[in-house]
Amino acid sequence: MPADQLPVLVFDVNETLSDLTPLRGRFEEVGAPGHLLPTWFAGVLRDGFALTAAGAYADFADVARDGLQAALSGLDGWAGDSDAAARHILDGLADLDVHPDVPGGVGKLSDEGYRLTTMTNGSVALTERLLDKAGVLNRFECLSDVSGPRCWKPAAAAYYYAVERAGVRPDQVLMIAVHPWDIDGAQRAGLEGAWLRRGASAYPQTMTPPRHVARDLQELADVLASDRRTAAPTK
Amino acid sequence: MPADQLPVLVFDVNETLSDLTPLRGRFEEVGAPGHLLPTWFAGVLRDGFALTAAGAYADFADVARDGLQAALSGLDGWAGDSDAAARHILDGLADLDVHPDVPGGVGKLSDEGYRLTTMTNGSVALTERLLDKAGVLNRFECLSDVSGPRCWKPAAAAYYYAVERAGVRPDQVLMIAVHPWDIDGAQRAGLEGAWLRRGASAYPQTMTPPRHVARDLQELADVLASDRRTAAPTK
Repeated sequence: MPADQLPVLVFDVNETLSDLTPLRGRFEEVGAPGHLLPTWFAGVLRDGFALTAAGAYADFADVARDGLQAALSGLDGWAGDSDAAARHILDGLADLDVHPDVPGGVGKLSDEGYRLTTMTNGSVALTERLLDKAGVLNRFECLSDVSGPRCWKPAAAAYYYAVERAGVRPDQVLMIAVHPWDIDGAQRAGLEGAWLRRGASAYPQTMTPPRHVARDLQELADVLASDRRTAAPTK
Repeated sequence: MPADQLPVLVFDVNETLSDLTPLRGRFEEVGAPGHLLPTWFAGVLRDGFALTAAGAYADFADVARDGLQAALSGLDGWAGDSDAAARHILDGLADLDVHPDVPGGVGKLSDEGYRLTTMTNGSVALTERLLDKAGVLNRFECLSDVSGPRCWKPAAAAYYYAVERAGVRPDQVLMIAVHPWDIDGAQRAGLEGAWLRRGASAYPQTMTPPRHVARDLQELADVLASDRRTAAPTK
């Protein structure tokens, strides 16, 4: 990317901007253990990616509901109404907040002149609600989801859809995500990737290493600013 | 499929033939909670499918090791050696047994004249060890894994690889698996699918319904025999 040109930033949403941990309480409210949350969420991505790898597509909400019904009905001794329980947990997705570093980090990147967009395996409607609640919706010029390309990230076509909506080339885009598979897929599609660690220490050896690494969005804004100073031509 | 022709059976291996639950004990032995097992396993499939959806490939053992290191180093207060702990858990894969219904079910299907094969996202070496330990290795004519096609199931190419090794057409093959995504992928690739429930009650609405459903392999042998009697021409 030319040193004098800012990349368009494409943010992943679930877990990158939003904090899913309050959903643990919703599992507990329907009588399920809170540790089902990460198992369920990994299974939702597994099944959405499986459909994508098989050339098919379903909306996140439908895959998420299927996954909850399987998880709940598979619990030893659990005898609730799995439809109602799944609805109660999924309703929590509309009630999430962003991580504490997001408003400041988004504001800083926007003030520095970056164009901000999102691309989620979830939905634009929930993205809009999340960003509005956090007071940063007006910083974003475009919100996308996989119902457009009808395949989930990390398939290349999902990234190209977001890139084309921004009217740039893949190498003019920086994908920002907490999930290594999202960084890996974006980079294989020709974008650059910035991995937000958010407490994680291990990046998979089986995936392409991220171009940038930062603890959170505040630190990423600093990392990018430092890179620009280094890359700027000497006067 | 012609009523007078038996399909070639392709068995999935992990969880379909093998019982992974003893791995819970290995998590506990390294100081991690046993409920990390399903989270980790869903994450391994998620990451393997992500690589496949992005047009890439890694061996199951490498994705599994990456997943363990991420899971263990992300545990609150866990301060072990994540390399050694991951090795201890992965060594358990070589020590698994088949589910109790497998020897009888495999024997019955083999006696009835079905050709038996396997296709795993794992490895042929571990498949061979598992089946040998269970005393049914000699019932299988061919064992395959995804290192051949270099993409994981449920990508169509992974099924075609197993189908071609059997020297038949996709519609002459019945895929037998406990995972709905495997049934869905096989059926989208033109094979038939038999879902082994193994205690599950909910099949995802986002996936193509299985051609056959059975509680376990013994029941599947009965279901297939009953289908053949129904399909046989009246004399």
